[in-house]
Amino acid sequence: MDRRSFLRASTVGAGAAAASTLASPLVAQGTRTLTMVTSWPRGFAVLDDAAQYLVKFVGELSGGSLTIDLKAPGELVGAFEVFDAVSSGQADMYHSADYYFISQHPGYAYFTAVPFGGTAQEVTNWYHHGGGQALHDELGSIFNLKGFLAGNSGSQSGGWFRKEIASADDFNGLKFRMPGLGGQVLGKLGASVQNIPGGELYQALSSGALDGLEWVGPLADERAGFQEVAKVYYTAGFHEPGSALAANINLDVWNGLSDQHKAILQYAAMAVTHFQLSETLANNGAALARLQAQGVKTLQFPNDVWDAFGRASKEVMDENMGDPLFAKIRESFEASLATSASWIQKSDGFYVEQRTRVLGG
Amino acid sequence: MDRRSFLRASTVGAGAAAASTLASPLVAQGTRTLTMVTSWPRGFAVLDDAAQYLVKFVGELSGGSLTIDLKAPGELVGAFEVFDAVSSGQADMYHSADYYFISQHPGYAYFTAVPFGGTAQEVTNWYHHGGGQALHDELGSIFNLKGFLAGNSGSQSGGWFRKEIASADDFNGLKFRMPGLGGQVLGKLGASVQNIPGGELYQALSSGALDGLEWVGPLADERAGFQEVAKVYYTAGFHEPGSALAANINLDVWNGLSDQHKAILQYAAMAVTHFQLSETLANNGAALARLQAQGVKTLQFPNDVWDAFGRASKEVMDENMGDPLFAKIRESFEASLATSASWIQKSDGFYVEQRTRVLGG
Repeated sequence: MDRRSFLRASTVGAGAAAASTLASPLVAQGTRTLTMVTSWPRGFAVLDDAAQYLVKFVGELSGGSLTIDLKAPGELVGAFEVFDAVSSGQADMYHSADYYFISQHPGYAYFTAVPFGGTAQEVTNWYHHGGGQALHDELGSIFNLKGFLAGNSGSQSGGWFRKEIASADDFNGLKFRMPGLGGQVLGKLGASVQNIPGGELYQALSSGALDGLEWVGPLADERAGFQEVAKVYYTAGFHEPGSALAANINLDVWNGLSDQHKAILQYAAMAVTHFQLSETLANNGAALARLQAQGVKTLQFPNDVWDAFGRASKEVMDENMGDPLFAKIRESFEASLATSASWIQKSDGFYVEQRTRVLGG
Repeated sequence: MDRRSFLRASTVGAGAAAASTLASPLVAQGTRTLTMVTSWPRGFAVLDDAAQYLVKFVGELSGGSLTIDLKAPGELVGAFEVFDAVSSGQADMYHSADYYFISQHPGYAYFTAVPFGGTAQEVTNWYHHGGGQALHDELGSIFNLKGFLAGNSGSQSGGWFRKEIASADDFNGLKFRMPGLGGQVLGKLGASVQNIPGGELYQALSSGALDGLEWVGPLADERAGFQEVAKVYYTAGFHEPGSALAANINLDVWNGLSDQHKAILQYAAMAVTHFQLSETLANNGAALARLQAQGVKTLQFPNDVWDAFGRASKEVMDENMGDPLFAKIRESFEASLATSASWIQKSDGFYVEQRTRVLGG
C-alpha cells in the first residue's frame, strides 16, 4: 500500500468511527460488494469485456466503496439462469442480453435487439431520450429488477454457415442457433432454431449439432474460433442491428443503495457502452481481415433473402402484439426509430456516401 | 435539506474533523470545486447541454465531493479565451471545441473534426482505441493541459444560406462563418471566412456582417434562431462529420487530483458523450420538421460542389503537414478511420440500406 492509499484508508476509517453512532447505514453502504452473475464465459470478447469494464469503472468511480464480484456461468448459476437468480435475490445483479429472457416477457427483446430494429446509435437514442429507460423500468418492476443498458455489440453479423445461402429456401431444415425474436423469424423460414449459451457453441458447431450459427461479429467470433469449423460468413444480418447488453439489479438491492452509488452504476453503464462499443468497432475490421486470411469467405445475403426476412419479421412482431406491454414498447421504439433514422440518413448517411464517392474509399 | 442529505453532510463533516491532523490535503480534496470556463452561452442547445451534463454527472458521481463551477462566456473570460485561461491556471478547466485553438496548434483540429473526417462513432473508435487519447495528451502537454472528449454534435449541417448553392463558384466572395480547417477549405473556394463565437452569430447574420454560417444541426440551430434570418439549409456538410466537444483541465490541477476524482472526470466525460449525442440525434429529426414548417428549404449540396470541397480539403490538410505532430496525428487518425469505416460500411451501412429497401422507409 503506498502512502496515498494508506492515508485514504485511514481517513475512511476515521470517518466511519466518528460517524458510526450517527449514520451507520450510510457508512455500511460505503464498502458494499454486489455479486454479479453473467452469461459470458471469462475472456469472451465484446460480451465479457463489457461486464469486466462495468466492474472496473464502478470500482474506480467509487474509490473502492462499491465493488462488483463477477461470477461467470457455472460459478454460481448457469448462463441463462441469471435472470431468475437476480429476480429472486440469489444474486444481486446480472450482466447479459435481455432478449435471452423473452420467455419471461417478449418485451425484453427490445432491450437487446429486434429484427429490422435500430442500430446501436438508434437504440441509444430511444433508450435515453425516447422513453426506453422508463419502459425497461416498467418491465423490470414485474420481476423485481432495475435495468440499465451496459454495452453494445454493434450491428451483428449474419452468421456462420457451411455453405452459401442462395435463397430463403436454404434455411428450410437448417439447424441454426439464433436467440430472441430473430430466431422466431428463421423458424418461419423452416429452420430448426436453437438457443445455446455462447460457451457451448463451438462444440455444437464442431459436432454437427448445429449447421450454422450467428454469434456477434468478427472480433468476438474470431475469439470463439468458429472460423475453424465453418468457412462462409455473412457480414450483415437482419436480426440484431445494434444489440444492447444489459445489467439488471435486484430492485430491493437497488432501492437500498445510496444516491451516489446509484449514480455510479448508471453513469458507469453509459461509459461502458461508449467505451466497449467503440473498442468493438475499432477492431472488427482487422479481425475480419484475419478471418479472411484463414480462408473464410465473406458475403452478403441477396435481396430476395432480405425480403423473406422482412416478411417473416413482420409476422413475428405482429404475433406478439396481444401483450399490451409488448405493444406499448413496440410503439414507443418505432416512433423513436422513425425520427432518429430519418435525420441520421440525411446527415451521417449522406455524408458517408459522399465521402466514399469523393475519396474513392 | 432532507434527512438523507443532512446525514451525509454530517458524515463528511465528522470524517473531516476526525482525520484533520492525519490527512488534511486529502480531506481538502474531498470537497474540491473546479472552475470551468466554457465557449457556450447558457441555454445553447447541444453545446451548453454537454457542459451542464458534465457538471451534473461529476457532482452526482462524487456525492458532491467534486463540484464544477461553470462560467459561461463573459462571466470570467471570453468564449475563445478559455484555452489560455486554463493553460495559464486562471481557470481550472474549460469545455469547448478544440478546433477553436488551431492557431495554438493545428493538431487540435483532430480533437473536434476535420474535413472529410470521421463520424461521431469513428472519432470515438480512434480516440479510445486507436491512439487518439494519447495524442491528445501529447498535444496537451505542450500547453500544460489534460484533455478528454466530452460531448459530440453528430454530423453537422452544411449550414444556412440566403440563396441556394448551385456550384462551388457561389462560395466566391461569400462572407461565411466556419471555424477549424473547414473554414480554410472554404477560403480556398474564395469565401471570406470568419470565426465568430456562437453567442454573436445571430446578430452577425441579421446585420449582414455574414452572408451565411454553419453552426451545429437542427436542434442547436433552431434554438439559436437562424431560421428567422435565412431560409436555405443544407443538411449534410463536408466540414464536421462528427464534432467532438472537449474538456481540458490544467495539468497541475489534474496531477493534484485523487485517483477517484480522476476516474470520475474521465468516465463522466464518456457518459456525457453517450448521453448528449443520443439526445441530439433523438431530437434533430423533429427540430428539422419544425424548421421546415417555418419555411426553411432543406437541400443537399450537388456532387460537383462535394468534389470541390474534396479537392480543397486535401490542399488544406497537406499544407499543415510541415508540423511533425500534426503529421503524426493525421497518420494515426487516417489509419483508424480506414479500418473503422470499412467494417461499419459492411455491417451498419449495408443493414440500413436493406432496412430502407425492405421496409420502404
